[in-house]
Amino acid sequence: MIELRSDTFTLPTEEMLEAIPKAALGDDIYGEDPTVKQLEQLAAEMLGKEAAIFMPSGTMANLASLMAHCPRGSKVLVGNETDIYIYEAAGASVCGGIMYEPIPTQPDGTLLIEDLAKAFPDDTSDPQFALPSLITIENPHNRMGGKVLPLSYLEEVHQFAASKGLPVHMDGARIFNAAIALGVPVCEVAQYADSIQFCLSKGLSAPVGSMVVGTAEFIEKVYRLRKMLGGGMRQSGLLAAAGIIALEKMVDRLADDHANARRLAQGLSQIEGIEVDMDVPTNIVFFRVTAEGYTWQRFVEECRQAGLNIAELGHGRIRAVTHSGVTTEDIDTALDIIRHVLSKEEVLSV
Amino acid sequence: MIELRSDTFTLPTEEMLEAIPKAALGDDIYGEDPTVKQLEQLAAEMLGKEAAIFMPSGTMANLASLMAHCPRGSKVLVGNETDIYIYEAAGASVCGGIMYEPIPTQPDGTLLIEDLAKAFPDDTSDPQFALPSLITIENPHNRMGGKVLPLSYLEEVHQFAASKGLPVHMDGARIFNAAIALGVPVCEVAQYADSIQFCLSKGLSAPVGSMVVGTAEFIEKVYRLRKMLGGGMRQSGLLAAAGIIALEKMVDRLADDHANARRLAQGLSQIEGIEVDMDVPTNIVFFRVTAEGYTWQRFVEECRQAGLNIAELGHGRIRAVTHSGVTTEDIDTALDIIRHVLSKEEVLSV
Amino acid sequence: MIELRSDTFTLPTEEMLEAIPKAALGDDIYGEDPTVKQLEQLAAEMLGKEAAIFMPSGTMANLASLMAHCPRGSKVLVGNETDIYIYEAAGASVCGGIMYEPIPTQPDGTLLIEDLAKAFPDDTSDPQFALPSLITIENPHNRMGGKVLPLSYLEEVHQFAASKGLPVHMDGARIFNAAIALGVPVCEVAQYADSIQFCLSKGLSAPVGSMVVGTAEFIEKVYRLRKMLGGGMRQSGLLAAAGIIALEKMVDRLADDHANARRLAQGLSQIEGIEVDMDVPTNIVFFRVTAEGYTWQRFVEECRQAGLNIAELGHGRIRAVTHSGVTTEDIDTALDIIRHVLSKEEVLSV
Amino acid sequence: MIELRSDTFTLPTEEMLEAIPKAALGDDIYGEDPTVKQLEQLAAEMLGKEAAIFMPSGTMANLASLMAHCPRGSKVLVGNETDIYIYEAAGASVCGGIMYEPIPTQPDGTLLIEDLAKAFPDDTSDPQFALPSLITIENPHNRMGGKVLPLSYLEEVHQFAASKGLPVHMDGARIFNAAIALGVPVCEVAQYADSIQFCLSKGLSAPVGSMVVGTAEFIEKVYRLRKMLGGGMRQSGLLAAAGIIALEKMVDRLADDHANARRLAQGLSQIEGIEVDMDVPTNIVFFRVTAEGYTWQRFVEECRQAGLNIAELGHGRIRAVTHSGVTTEDIDTALDIIRHVLSKEEVLSV
Repeated sequence: MIELRSDTFTLPTEEMLEAIPKAALGDDIYGEDPTVKQLEQLAAEMLGKEAAIFMPSGTMANLASLMAHCPRGSKVLVGNETDIYIYEAAGASVCGGIMYEPIPTQPDGTLLIEDLAKAFPDDTSDPQFALPSLITIENPHNRMGGKVLPLSYLEEVHQFAASKGLPVHMDGARIFNAAIALGVPVCEVAQYADSIQFCLSKGLSAPVGSMVVGTAEFIEKVYRLRKMLGGGMRQSGLLAAAGIIALEKMVDRLADDHANARRLAQGLSQIEGIEVDMDVPTNIVFFRVTAEGYTWQRFVEECRQAGLNIAELGHGRIRAVTHSGVTTEDIDTALDIIRHVLSKEEVLSV
Repeated sequence: MIELRSDTFTLPTEEMLEAIPKAALGDDIYGEDPTVKQLEQLAAEMLGKEAAIFMPSGTMANLASLMAHCPRGSKVLVGNETDIYIYEAAGASVCGGIMYEPIPTQPDGTLLIEDLAKAFPDDTSDPQFALPSLITIENPHNRMGGKVLPLSYLEEVHQFAASKGLPVHMDGARIFNAAIALGVPVCEVAQYADSIQFCLSKGLSAPVGSMVVGTAEFIEKVYRLRKMLGGGMRQSGLLAAAGIIALEKMVDRLADDHANARRLAQGLSQIEGIEVDMDVPTNIVFFRVTAEGYTWQRFVEECRQAGLNIAELGHGRIRAVTHSGVTTEDIDTALDIIRHVLSKEEVLSV
Repeated sequence: MIELRSDTFTLPTEEMLEAIPKAALGDDIYGEDPTVKQLEQLAAEMLGKEAAIFMPSGTMANLASLMAHCPRGSKVLVGNETDIYIYEAAGASVCGGIMYEPIPTQPDGTLLIEDLAKAFPDDTSDPQFALPSLITIENPHNRMGGKVLPLSYLEEVHQFAASKGLPVHMDGARIFNAAIALGVPVCEVAQYADSIQFCLSKGLSAPVGSMVVGTAEFIEKVYRLRKMLGGGMRQSGLLAAAGIIALEKMVDRLADDHANARRLAQGLSQIEGIEVDMDVPTNIVFFRVTAEGYTWQRFVEECRQAGLNIAELGHGRIRAVTHSGVTTEDIDTALDIIRHVLSKEEVLSV
Repeated sequence: MIELRSDTFTLPTEEMLEAIPKAALGDDIYGEDPTVKQLEQLAAEMLGKEAAIFMPSGTMANLASLMAHCPRGSKVLVGNETDIYIYEAAGASVCGGIMYEPIPTQPDGTLLIEDLAKAFPDDTSDPQFALPSLITIENPHNRMGGKVLPLSYLEEVHQFAASKGLPVHMDGARIFNAAIALGVPVCEVAQYADSIQFCLSKGLSAPVGSMVVGTAEFIEKVYRLRKMLGGGMRQSGLLAAAGIIALEKMVDRLADDHANARRLAQGLSQIEGIEVDMDVPTNIVFFRVTAEGYTWQRFVEECRQAGLNIAELGHGRIRAVTHSGVTTEDIDTALDIIRHVLSKEEVLSV
């Protein structure tokens, strides 16, 4: 089975599986797991921030970050197509008493500064209005096709936020894909956000976990919130050992995933009955099936039966994500499968 | 001063002021205020619902209704231009752990069924998604110019909600204006909503208070929530006495406010430098100042100095609301003031 | 019917009923009700604080105060026999994400400093522990029999709180009763609390409303929270007019209620089958029925049938509260009724 | 270093470390990790419940259970000495809007039924009162010295709860220690609770994770909440592989820990300057240092320097916990160290 539903399906590498049982362990809730500490230090250094903390998931990483930034009753400004808004089960409202204000997302994954500006009431002393306390951006942007936000845009958002006295949180679940796509060290991408969450368990192939980075003071708040939410874990050095390898060994190879994604998009563009977004800066390809007689449901199901796993991801679009478990040959096979599925239809529909 | 900023500025009528000191009183937190009971029964009957409850404000009426309908972690679908979304300080997220999902509002104040439908995930068992638990509509629609939702639309929304197993809550702050505009008893408007809040303190001219109506079971939940939020009051029969008069004597005269609003719109449409929305079914007129040299701030301020109070209400539009404190002559005077303010400009700009 | 269930049953005085219809009114949500403003200024001055705000109830006054003081996830230290802990429907947990930590209450209504101290973890950096953010006290203490906290104790609590960097909130629902009992101006009682809520609608006899007083900055926060909770009201000057008379005219007469309460306790102490707490500093008397064959339920019911309303208030004790609607003669009649009810039993049980 | 601070310091066994890299993995957020599924099935079977779910921590296991049982605004009845009340950072108030009502804990770890009964208001229709929605018990009881609740007591609590229409949640972090101490299969202990959380990472020695068990319907709710809280993990089969071994191989050996704990208590009882609770049914020993000149801080520190890690755990008591990382010889050495530390003092104090 060729697995293109998500890069979250990446399995730990051999090197990770060897390192895990050898990891020095302790009780991280007592702050005594040396491998977790090492991972946290490494993450902070790579992202260019004061401190980092290991979290069981990207969802908790975002949730705790939002709660650390946003007082009860304030608004978090969040793109209407972001994972935080759509896929994280309203956590900030439930656990934080925070209101999500969705901002229209541009095709390139950015939020217009003027749209952000509209979320600020003229009269901040009017108690009718919940006041914004945080701007979040997603980079690369999953549901907009892995689009990478330009550094100049990041700077602009950061300056706008600062002018309003607000921090910026980056949902950088795949921030290393952004850095690779831009050809810059990840800290250059990170510099324009006050806090960042990124996942070890997506393209970087670690089995479990995400990191939050930021100032030491901010990470201290996230640390308290992690305990409250139940994200404190015991001998989590087992997971951190894989995370260290993810950061040290798995970053550069993301370029292969990007090449494969472009190859896939290229191939798809030549198949009749497929409409593909050709702007593929990272490892995510979005396309639609326009072939007569095909709903996305039917198409996805027939591909699955033929050995290709893909999935719908909003608005009837199909998402294919490349990762370390997918080779260039797999891409070609995937294209063959898709061609075959659609050609079958043509035969059938005669 | 001609007060057109809002119909919340209505003062109690003479009849109310006479009735208030004579009201039979008790401690309503013990359920022993007869005047409050009488008002609640009257409201339930008029709206055609099992039960009603007196609340200190429309904000609390909406908040308690949302909390009674929506479990923690669910989504309330709410028009993006509604008072609930914009002016109620994120209460449902803070107090209820409820996520607001804003739905685009059409110019006539309706939400498209297809837009509502998009808020329901295909796979409701997927825990990533907060699930909708309530559809809210606002009728008449304040920020869309007092637009009255057609009965056929209300029925359609109600059927759609029922097909999803969801209730409908109507923010009917000015529901009697809708009924008057439609020329039907208010219970015909109310029939398509499971719960309704309406204000006694707007066009109906009572000093304080709103009602929630619905099933007896629902009102029981709102009653508990009212206490928790701090909306239980002692000898509130004083306020209820005015509310009874509001319901018995002040409904029919809303037609005058509507005529005045149309008169105002008509007059504005003939003033150069003003762009007015001529669809004025109730007591709310929206217009823009397009005259050169005028921001809305300047225009509002100059009108105020000339004896006319109006205010901006979103997107740079100016709102004028007619009510029992505004006569037809006041409307003509208001038009004179506006003409004068703008003509002065023309003179000045020569 | 002699009403001793609560001083919340007080009806507005003639003077209030005359003042109410004459009150200068405005829309207080726009900050334009002059009578409300006058009441707020008067309350702040009398309590010796920078600012005050009018609230629809003591419950909301306490809730908004707790939310203004306590961040989400912190603990409010609160006596285990206080109204805030027992009668306010968990509002601070629901709306504020605040944990109540009940502290044992001493017979005199105080909380021991050493008990308060135990609520502070040794290691405040340990994220397992919710951290205290507020100390609340109730004065006079309702369920401990209207006990008045000594000024020296108030000072001690305030110093302890300050040593921990925490504010003190006083639930002074009946703070004027405390001041009268101590024979000091109310500002001397208020000086040891950072914020105070007190009720206009209990012994002071106004129909509706409570005040919160504190620093201007604190009241600004409460003002935002009041709107969110739905406590913003329109022409609430109607209620404020009564509140002003309550503060100006109804304070000194509380001494009569205290005398009546002592008279009642004295009388009860001489009735066989009654055990009464003879420490009655204010207007609240607690007693138990020990007469054979009597549950409190039966006793309360028979008194009610004989024209005396009293009620159980925790732990099987019966509370009687004196107020402006109860004369000295009423007290004597009440004693007659109780004697008669119990003597009937003796006859019956022969 | 002899580590007696907690059984959370247990390191994964060799067998676990071998199994982990060989575990069949998948993305558990997609429900496709076979090892996690296997662990969940095993846990449900052993505990005799319909379903089970893997959680990253006991804190989240308890938090999600409370949120699944308790509606917003209700009360959870919880022992005042339980981990849920003391060590879980107010999570249920923050994330669930739930009020904790602490119930006095008896020396044997039980809560008196009469104390539980007091938390139910006479008049449940009175909106002043938050209503109980869940009874929680802790078994064995950590802070009461690992006391095991008798089966007859569990049945009694369960019946009481059922009579009130409420479920029982058992914080069975160390439930297998209870079963071993009672000499019954764990399902006999579990039968009297509607939901149970237990830890794989304490005496059972798995590195990370806890389980919640209950009805399929309940676990479905917990599953949704786990995602919202951020406890959904990707290739968590790595952790589950150790959990399976924990359940299959590590239960019976808990008897050794219990024997070691008794041996430790026995030894301590013969050391002057130590006061030890001799009722040691499981793996937890509590004692106090009464030797002159010794605070617990000094004692703990000197033991640490001498190679023995112990810690204070409330009320100045010292807790020692035996586990798989502690041999009988370690216990004897620990006793030697303690004797030495205290004898040194005697010498010094001469």
